[in-house]
Amino acid sequence: MFVHEMDHAECIALMANKALARLACSNDGMSYVVPISFQYVDGYILSFSRPGKKIDWMRKNGRVCVEIDEIWDKRQWKCLVAEGLFHELTELSEREHAWSLLQKQFDWWEPGGYKTTAESVGEALDPVYFKIEITRMSGRRAFDE
Amino acid sequence: MFVHEMDHAECIALMANKALARLACSNDGMSYVVPISFQYVDGYILSFSRPGKKIDWMRKNGRVCVEIDEIWDKRQWKCLVAEGLFHELTELSEREHAWSLLQKQFDWWEPGGYKTTAESVGEALDPVYFKIEITRMSGRRAFDE
Repeated sequence: MFVHEMDHAECIALMANKALARLACSNDGMSYVVPISFQYVDGYILSFSRPGKKIDWMRKNGRVCVEIDEIWDKRQWKCLVAEGLFHELTELSEREHAWSLLQKQFDWWEPGGYKTTAESVGEALDPVYFKIEITRMSGRRAFDE
Repeated sequence: MFVHEMDHAECIALMANKALARLACSNDGMSYVVPISFQYVDGYILSFSRPGKKIDWMRKNGRVCVEIDEIWDKRQWKCLVAEGLFHELTELSEREHAWSLLQKQFDWWEPGGYKTTAESVGEALDPVYFKIEITRMSGRRAFDE
Protein backbone atom coordinates (compact mmCIF):
# COMPACT_ATOMS: atom_id res chain seq x y z
CA MET A 1 0.00 0.00 0.00
CA PHE A 2 1.23 3.49 -0.88
CA VAL A 3 0.02 6.66 0.82
CA HIS A 4 0.45 9.99 -0.96
CA GLU A 5 -0.48 13.56 -0.14
CA MET A 6 -3.34 14.80 -2.29
CA ASP A 7 -2.79 18.10 -4.07
CA HIS A 8 -5.25 21.00 -3.95
CA ALA A 9 -7.12 19.91 -7.08
CA GLU A 10 -7.59 16.37 -5.75
CA CYS A 11 -8.93 17.73 -2.46
CA ILE A 12 -11.41 20.00 -4.27
CA ALA A 13 -12.51 17.11 -6.49
CA LEU A 14 -13.16 14.91 -3.47
CA MET A 15 -15.26 17.60 -1.79
CA ALA A 16 -17.18 18.29 -4.97
CA ASN A 17 -18.04 14.61 -5.39
CA LYS A 18 -19.15 13.85 -1.85
CA ALA A 19 -22.24 14.86 0.09
CA LEU A 20 -21.41 13.41 3.52
CA ALA A 21 -18.81 14.80 5.90
CA ARG A 22 -17.99 14.60 9.58
CA LEU A 23 -18.02 17.94 11.34
CA ALA A 24 -16.15 18.47 14.62
CA CYS A 25 -16.53 21.44 16.92
CA SER A 26 -15.46 22.14 20.45
CA ASN A 27 -16.66 23.98 23.50
CA ASP A 28 -14.67 24.60 26.65
CA GLY A 29 -12.27 21.71 25.98
CA MET A 30 -14.98 19.23 25.00
CA SER A 31 -15.21 17.87 21.46
CA TYR A 32 -18.22 16.87 19.42
CA VAL A 33 -18.36 15.16 16.02
CA VAL A 34 -21.39 14.37 13.87
CA PRO A 35 -22.14 13.49 10.24
CA ILE A 36 -23.50 16.28 8.07
CA SER A 37 -24.71 16.45 4.53
CA PHE A 38 -23.12 19.27 2.60
CA GLN A 39 -22.46 20.79 -0.76
CA TYR A 40 -19.12 22.29 -1.71
CA VAL A 41 -19.42 25.77 -3.25
CA ASP A 42 -16.35 27.90 -4.04
CA GLY A 43 -14.23 27.42 -0.95
CA TYR A 44 -17.17 26.82 1.37
CA ILE A 45 -18.99 23.81 2.70
CA LEU A 46 -22.68 24.64 2.70
CA SER A 47 -24.98 22.80 5.09
CA PHE A 48 -27.94 23.10 7.42
CA SER A 49 -29.12 21.59 10.66
CA ARG A 50 -31.92 21.67 13.11
CA PRO A 51 -31.11 23.85 16.11
CA GLY A 52 -29.21 21.84 18.71
CA LYS A 53 -25.87 21.11 20.29
CA LYS A 54 -23.60 21.55 17.27
CA ILE A 55 -25.27 24.84 16.29
CA ASP A 56 -25.03 26.13 19.87
CA TRP A 57 -21.37 25.20 20.05
CA MET A 58 -20.44 26.63 16.65
CA ARG A 59 -22.14 29.91 17.50
CA LYS A 60 -19.89 30.11 20.58
CA ASN A 61 -16.72 28.90 18.86
CA GLY A 62 -16.68 29.04 15.07
CA ARG A 63 -13.35 27.23 14.62
CA VAL A 64 -14.33 23.80 13.33
CA CYS A 65 -12.88 20.85 11.46
CA VAL A 66 -14.38 18.80 8.64
CA GLU A 67 -13.35 15.34 7.51
CA ILE A 68 -14.40 13.88 4.14
CA ASP A 69 -13.42 10.48 2.85
CA GLU A 70 -14.03 7.90 0.18
CA ILE A 71 -13.22 4.32 1.09
CA TRP A 72 -13.16 1.43 -1.34
CA ASP A 73 -11.35 -1.00 0.94
CA LYS A 74 -8.68 -1.02 3.61
CA ARG A 75 -5.89 -0.30 1.18
CA GLN A 76 -7.61 2.09 -1.20
CA TRP A 77 -9.08 5.27 0.20
CA LYS A 78 -8.98 9.04 0.14
CA CYS A 79 -9.30 11.22 3.21
CA LEU A 80 -9.14 14.96 3.65
CA VAL A 81 -9.23 17.06 6.79
CA ALA A 82 -10.08 20.77 6.59
CA GLU A 83 -9.99 23.52 9.16
CA GLY A 84 -12.73 26.08 8.80
CA LEU A 85 -14.77 28.92 10.18
CA PHE A 86 -18.50 28.76 10.85
CA HIS A 87 -20.73 31.41 9.28
CA GLU A 88 -24.46 31.32 9.91
CA LEU A 89 -26.67 32.37 7.01
CA THR A 90 -29.18 34.77 8.46
CA GLU A 91 -30.51 36.68 5.45
CA LEU A 92 -33.62 35.20 3.90
CA SER A 93 -32.13 35.41 0.40
CA GLU A 94 -29.02 33.47 1.51
CA ARG A 95 -31.18 30.89 3.25
CA GLU A 96 -33.42 30.40 0.23
CA HIS A 97 -30.38 30.04 -2.02
CA ALA A 98 -28.87 27.49 0.36
CA TRP A 99 -32.16 25.63 0.47
CA SER A 100 -32.29 25.45 -3.33
CA LEU A 101 -28.77 23.96 -3.43
CA LEU A 102 -29.32 21.54 -0.56
CA GLN A 103 -32.88 20.36 -1.06
CA LYS A 104 -31.90 17.22 -2.95
CA GLN A 105 -30.00 16.08 0.13
CA PHE A 106 -32.77 17.18 2.41
CA ASP A 107 -33.78 13.90 3.98
CA TRP A 108 -30.20 12.88 4.58
CA TRP A 109 -29.85 13.41 8.34
CA GLU A 110 -33.07 15.19 9.06
CA PRO A 111 -36.44 13.55 9.47
CA GLY A 112 -38.46 16.52 8.26
CA GLY A 113 -39.16 17.81 4.81
CA TYR A 114 -39.73 21.38 5.83
CA LYS A 115 -38.99 24.29 3.54
CA THR A 116 -37.61 27.66 4.53
CA THR A 117 -39.98 30.44 3.56
CA ALA A 118 -40.52 33.98 4.71
CA GLU A 119 -43.27 32.62 6.97
CA SER A 120 -41.24 29.82 8.56
CA VAL A 121 -38.16 31.83 9.55
CA GLY A 122 -37.75 31.79 13.30
CA GLU A 123 -40.10 28.89 13.87
CA ALA A 124 -38.88 26.15 16.17
CA LEU A 125 -38.25 23.60 13.43
CA ASP A 126 -36.85 26.04 10.91
CA PRO A 127 -33.38 24.75 9.99
CA VAL A 128 -30.22 26.72 10.58
CA TYR A 129 -28.28 27.21 7.36
CA PHE A 130 -24.55 27.74 7.59
CA LYS A 131 -21.37 27.63 5.62
CA ILE A 132 -17.90 26.57 6.69
CA GLU A 133 -15.20 28.74 5.18
CA ILE A 134 -12.28 26.41 4.51
CA THR A 135 -9.09 28.00 5.78
CA ARG A 136 -6.70 25.07 5.45
CA MET A 137 -6.87 21.52 4.21
CA SER A 138 -4.78 18.49 3.51
CA GLY A 139 -5.57 15.05 2.19
CA ARG A 140 -4.07 11.63 1.73
CA ARG A 141 -4.75 8.92 -0.77
CA ALA A 142 -3.86 5.24 -0.33
CA PHE A 143 -3.60 2.85 -3.22
CA ASP A 144 -2.13 -0.46 -4.31
CA GLU A 145 -0.03 -0.72 -7.43
CA MET B 1 -38.49 8.00 7.46
CA PHE B 2 -38.58 7.41 11.21
CA VAL B 3 -35.74 8.31 13.57
CA HIS B 4 -35.51 6.59 16.95
CA GLU B 5 -33.09 6.78 19.82
CA MET B 6 -31.00 3.63 20.11
CA ASP B 7 -30.89 1.97 23.50
CA HIS B 8 -27.68 0.97 25.26
CA ALA B 9 -27.64 -2.56 23.82
CA GLU B 10 -28.05 -1.26 20.28
CA CYS B 11 -25.20 1.19 20.76
CA ILE B 12 -22.92 -1.55 22.08
CA ALA B 13 -23.88 -3.84 19.19
CA LEU B 14 -23.03 -1.13 16.66
CA MET B 15 -19.62 -0.53 18.24
CA ALA B 16 -18.89 -4.24 18.42
CA ASN B 17 -19.68 -4.69 14.74
CA LYS B 18 -17.74 -1.78 13.33
CA ALA B 19 -14.00 -1.20 12.97
CA LEU B 20 -13.98 2.38 11.65
CA ALA B 21 -14.80 5.46 13.71
CA ARG B 22 -14.20 9.18 13.51
CA LEU B 23 -12.29 10.57 16.46
CA ALA B 24 -12.46 14.27 17.37
CA CYS B 25 -10.18 16.06 19.78
CA SER B 26 -9.53 19.69 20.54
CA ASN B 27 -6.68 21.94 21.54
CA ASP B 28 -6.99 25.56 22.60
CA GLY B 29 -10.35 26.03 20.87
CA MET B 30 -9.33 24.27 17.63
CA SER B 31 -10.96 21.00 16.59
CA TYR B 32 -9.52 18.05 14.72
CA VAL B 33 -11.29 14.97 13.36
CA VAL B 34 -9.81 11.90 11.69
CA PRO B 35 -10.83 8.32 10.90
CA ILE B 36 -9.45 5.61 13.16
CA SER B 37 -9.66 1.88 13.18
CA PHE B 38 -10.68 0.49 16.52
CA GLN B 39 -11.91 -2.46 18.45
CA TYR B 40 -14.55 -2.21 21.15
CA VAL B 41 -13.58 -3.98 24.40
CA ASP B 42 -15.70 -3.70 27.55
CA GLY B 43 -16.52 -0.01 27.64
CA TYR B 44 -13.40 1.07 25.83
CA ILE B 45 -12.47 1.82 22.25
CA LEU B 46 -9.02 0.40 21.65
CA SER B 47 -6.86 1.86 18.90
CA PHE B 48 -3.38 2.91 17.89
CA SER B 49 -1.73 5.56 15.79
CA ARG B 50 1.60 6.79 14.63
CA PRO B 51 2.82 9.71 16.70
CA GLY B 52 1.43 12.97 15.33
CA LYS B 53 -1.12 15.72 15.75
CA LYS B 54 -3.99 13.74 17.24
CA ILE B 55 -1.71 11.99 19.75
CA ASP B 56 -0.10 15.31 20.74
CA TRP B 57 -3.50 16.91 21.21
CA MET B 58 -5.01 14.00 23.17
CA ARG B 59 -2.03 13.95 25.51
CA LYS B 60 -2.72 17.62 26.27
CA ASN B 61 -6.52 17.28 26.45
CA GLY B 62 -7.91 13.79 26.90
CA ARG B 63 -11.58 14.74 26.51
CA VAL B 64 -12.49 13.40 23.08
CA CYS B 65 -15.53 12.41 21.04
CA VAL B 66 -16.05 9.38 18.83
CA GLU B 67 -18.65 8.94 16.09
CA ILE B 68 -19.55 5.54 14.63
CA ASP B 69 -22.13 4.94 11.95
CA GLU B 70 -23.55 2.41 9.56
CA ILE B 71 -25.24 3.80 6.47
CA TRP B 72 -27.27 1.78 4.03
CA ASP B 73 -28.88 4.71 2.27
CA LYS B 74 -30.17 8.19 3.02
CA ARG B 75 -33.17 6.91 4.91
CA GLN B 76 -31.70 3.91 6.69
CA TRP B 77 -28.75 4.46 8.95
CA LYS B 78 -27.44 4.17 12.50
CA CYS B 79 -25.23 6.75 14.12
CA LEU B 80 -23.78 6.97 17.61
CA VAL B 81 -21.78 9.70 19.27
CA ALA B 82 -19.75 8.95 22.39
CA GLU B 83 -17.85 11.19 24.76
CA GLY B 84 -14.70 9.66 26.14
CA LEU B 85 -11.39 9.99 27.91
CA PHE B 86 -8.03 9.23 26.33
CA HIS B 87 -5.72 6.77 28.10
CA GLU B 88 -2.35 5.97 26.59
CA LEU B 89 -1.15 2.39 26.97
CA THR B 90 2.41 2.63 28.16
CA GLU B 91 3.13 -0.77 29.71
CA LEU B 92 4.66 -3.28 27.32
CA SER B 93 2.16 -5.97 28.35
CA GLU B 94 -0.79 -3.65 27.58
CA ARG B 95 0.74 -2.69 24.26
CA GLU B 96 1.34 -6.30 23.25
CA HIS B 97 -2.21 -7.21 24.20
CA ALA B 98 -3.55 -4.28 22.19
CA TRP B 99 -1.41 -5.28 19.26
CA SER B 100 -2.77 -8.84 19.36
CA LEU B 101 -6.34 -7.51 19.27
CA LEU B 102 -5.72 -4.90 16.58
CA GLN B 103 -3.31 -6.61 14.22
CA LYS B 104 -5.99 -7.79 11.84
CA GLN B 105 -6.92 -4.15 11.24
CA PHE B 106 -3.33 -3.12 11.03
CA ASP B 107 -3.09 -1.84 7.50
CA TRP B 108 -6.29 0.12 7.83
CA TRP B 109 -5.00 3.68 8.15
CA GLU B 110 -1.34 2.98 8.58
CA PRO B 111 1.06 2.19 5.77
CA GLY B 112 3.42 0.13 7.91
CA GLY B 113 3.19 -3.42 9.12
CA TYR B 114 5.38 -2.95 12.15
CA LYS B 115 5.00 -4.95 15.30
CA THR B 116 5.45 -3.74 18.84
CA THR B 117 8.12 -5.71 20.65
CA ALA B 118 10.35 -5.07 23.60
CA GLU B 119 13.03 -3.94 21.13
CA SER B 120 10.85 -1.54 19.13
CA VAL B 121 9.36 0.42 22.04
CA GLY B 122 10.40 4.04 21.84
CA GLU B 123 11.52 3.90 18.24
CA ALA B 124 10.33 6.66 15.95
CA LEU B 125 7.81 4.53 14.07
CA ASP B 126 6.59 2.58 17.05
CA PRO B 127 2.83 3.13 17.21
CA VAL B 128 1.09 4.73 20.15
CA TYR B 129 -1.57 2.46 21.59
CA PHE B 130 -4.45 4.04 23.42
CA LYS B 131 -7.94 3.41 24.66
CA ILE B 132 -10.90 5.75 24.86
CA GLU B 133 -12.95 5.21 28.00
CA ILE B 134 -16.54 5.83 26.99
CA THR B 135 -18.19 8.10 29.52
CA ARG B 136 -21.44 8.88 27.72
CA MET B 137 -23.08 7.90 24.48
CA SER B 138 -26.24 8.23 22.50
CA GLY B 139 -27.34 6.95 19.15
CA ARG B 140 -30.07 7.31 16.58
CA ARG B 141 -31.42 4.94 14.01
CA ALA B 142 -33.39 5.92 10.89
CA PHE B 143 -35.57 3.50 9.03
CA ASP B 144 -38.47 3.24 6.60
CA GLU B 145 -41.45 1.17 7.38
